[in-house]
Amino acid sequence: MTKAKAISILGSTGSIGCNTLKVVEHLGDVRVVAMAAGRNIEKFVEQIERFSPELVACSDEECAVLLERATAKLDKRPRIECGEAGLVAVATHEEADIVVSATVGAVGFIPTLRAIEAGKRIALANKETLVMAGELMTAAAAASGAEIVPVDSEHNAIHQCLRGERKTEVRRLILTASGGPFRTWSKEKILSATREQALDHPNWKMGEKITIDSATLMNKGLEVIEAKWLFGFDADDISVIVHPQSVVHSMVELVDGSVIAQMGVPDMKHAIQYALTYPDRHGASCDRLDLAGVGKLEFEDPDLERFPCLSLAFEALKAGGTMPAVLNAANEVSVQAFLDGKISFGEIATINAGVMRGHTSEAANTLSAVLEADASARQRAIMAISPAAAAN
Amino acid sequence: MTKAKAISILGSTGSIGCNTLKVVEHLGDVRVVAMAAGRNIEKFVEQIERFSPELVACSDEECAVLLERATAKLDKRPRIECGEAGLVAVATHEEADIVVSATVGAVGFIPTLRAIEAGKRIALANKETLVMAGELMTAAAAASGAEIVPVDSEHNAIHQCLRGERKTEVRRLILTASGGPFRTWSKEKILSATREQALDHPNWKMGEKITIDSATLMNKGLEVIEAKWLFGFDADDISVIVHPQSVVHSMVELVDGSVIAQMGVPDMKHAIQYALTYPDRHGASCDRLDLAGVGKLEFEDPDLERFPCLSLAFEALKAGGTMPAVLNAANEVSVQAFLDGKISFGEIATINAGVMRGHTSEAANTLSAVLEADASARQRAIMAISPAAAAN
Repeated sequence: MTKAKAISILGSTGSIGCNTLKVVEHLGDVRVVAMAAGRNIEKFVEQIERFSPELVACSDEECAVLLERATAKLDKRPRIECGEAGLVAVATHEEADIVVSATVGAVGFIPTLRAIEAGKRIALANKETLVMAGELMTAAAAASGAEIVPVDSEHNAIHQCLRGERKTEVRRLILTASGGPFRTWSKEKILSATREQALDHPNWKMGEKITIDSATLMNKGLEVIEAKWLFGFDADDISVIVHPQSVVHSMVELVDGSVIAQMGVPDMKHAIQYALTYPDRHGASCDRLDLAGVGKLEFEDPDLERFPCLSLAFEALKAGGTMPAVLNAANEVSVQAFLDGKISFGEIATINAGVMRGHTSEAANTLSAVLEADASARQRAIMAISPAAAAN
Repeated sequence: MTKAKAISILGSTGSIGCNTLKVVEHLGDVRVVAMAAGRNIEKFVEQIERFSPELVACSDEECAVLLERATAKLDKRPRIECGEAGLVAVATHEEADIVVSATVGAVGFIPTLRAIEAGKRIALANKETLVMAGELMTAAAAASGAEIVPVDSEHNAIHQCLRGERKTEVRRLILTASGGPFRTWSKEKILSATREQALDHPNWKMGEKITIDSATLMNKGLEVIEAKWLFGFDADDISVIVHPQSVVHSMVELVDGSVIAQMGVPDMKHAIQYALTYPDRHGASCDRLDLAGVGKLEFEDPDLERFPCLSLAFEALKAGGTMPAVLNAANEVSVQAFLDGKISFGEIATINAGVMRGHTSEAANTLSAVLEADASARQRAIMAISPAAAAN
């Protein structure tokens, strides 16, 4: 008998957070000691009632007041904190063995770094953490002994494929990509794709930003960058294959020619559960894969000409230093501009490429270097989109 | 630096044997200390010249004389033995770390058992060993500490998929089957398939017996029985899926819903090399898998009505004891009768089923029990095929 695990969740009311709580209920032997959420107070209060964490954190003072009021009647009233300090308190709660890092965007950055420094296991769903500051984060993990277990399906699959293998005997990592809604479209048609077309993802219902990133294949590019830091492979040893059915979640090719693949149903509860129970495996909280029912798995090489954002990610990774953070920042701005109707679909890649070309990569081994690169890239992307507006 | 491995090969002039020698040349740090072959003296002499084993064995005195003469001029003349004693001497050569068991049929049975008893690692390609006497062989391996690493692609794939996993966390083994030449044929058409049609396998060039077994799916049934003994799973925890492209060599489903698959090009050198280098992996002696080039992997459930031999194997495994040996013996006789034009394709299954029904399973924990069951099943199969001939 091992003792019940205790977890903290950063971003409990989001999609990963809610699924984490379903997995917690399924497993039975996991305690939630701390939770942080944004502004969805109603859902957050339900979660607090159900899981009785010792500490909760919300975005600001105003939310904290609402939360005080809503939890006043509870038998076990949680401590309430807010802002970045609140997130950090949740991320470093002394009882937590595992921190689920599932906030969206840069807000999870510092709390995740603090959790790593505190030596927690990180169940990592936040993309920006490793894309922006992979060097910093992995150096901190090496120093504290913190283990990072990825929660998105591709990296989680690679983590599983590597269980019985030695890194020196791996030839390359192979990330699968669904190919997005424009997989079969011509280059010209893609360049002028509309917002509605780009948001119509064939396999997954996700947030708008990540859905656009799936349509440009930038999402896969960012995953290539994350894979470098998670597993310690160079850009040349990471490749991408398009696999529309999303059943093979990713693969590893060994030096002897063997390819090990991890497959499953497209349900994020699987990877979350894996990250919580690793190195053990527990009974499934999701459906079983019926391969005969799926019938057919298809694979094709990605077309870098139609999907230049994927090339940009490889270039950024090869340039190293602050370049991936710059690409990430430029892309956040350009995708938002596309969603706001300010630029065409094709211009997302053009702007990202322009911002990268205007940047000389620097060492990314301090937080300030990363944040400066991020800020200046955003500024230059905004200027590229709308020079007049930026000048004001 | 580990010291060079030394290997013995039972069946060096067959397909597995020749590929083993190619792998030995590729690896560079493996010595062949003993080799046994049948009647292909010309090829055997070439191999002896090239690999300079200390001991060689051939089928009988007559071959031994030819071999003496042919090797008289060599600088390093090998010791020469023959018959079963010769095979056993090769299988138990004191310098051998690994014994490649690649003879076809029952002739490899006793030598393989002796190698297991001597605590050698067995690179196992001989099918009959585990189908007929899985209990005996695995008990001997447990007693001596001998490791059995399977060389056929399906079991080798499962061995690889299990590298990082605990047996208690495995839900089932999933063996892939190409489906053979009659995968898409109607039941009626299959029943009266001709010898030429049955020998026309879509993916592999193999011997006649195994090609017919692929057409009936008995080959997969025998692999299910082997899988039980190699990995220690019951019939209910082993399943078969038809996969015409033979790229996924087999899979393992874990309790948490994850499916781990091993893929590769259809080249037996891969599995042979794996068995020689395990737990290490060395640079490939075969082509890399180009999944995008393959394009499409298909999967379907096997149709037990059209392929009743697969059901018979599961039944035999559930009955246990001597029943798998009985099925194997009946099938050898019925397949030979089909190849000789004495029975129809459909009668292979009918005769196998009849022989099984006439047998009451007994404990298979002694060699004599297994050999008796084998002999009596053959006799009954012969009688079922041609009652008059058997009476003479």
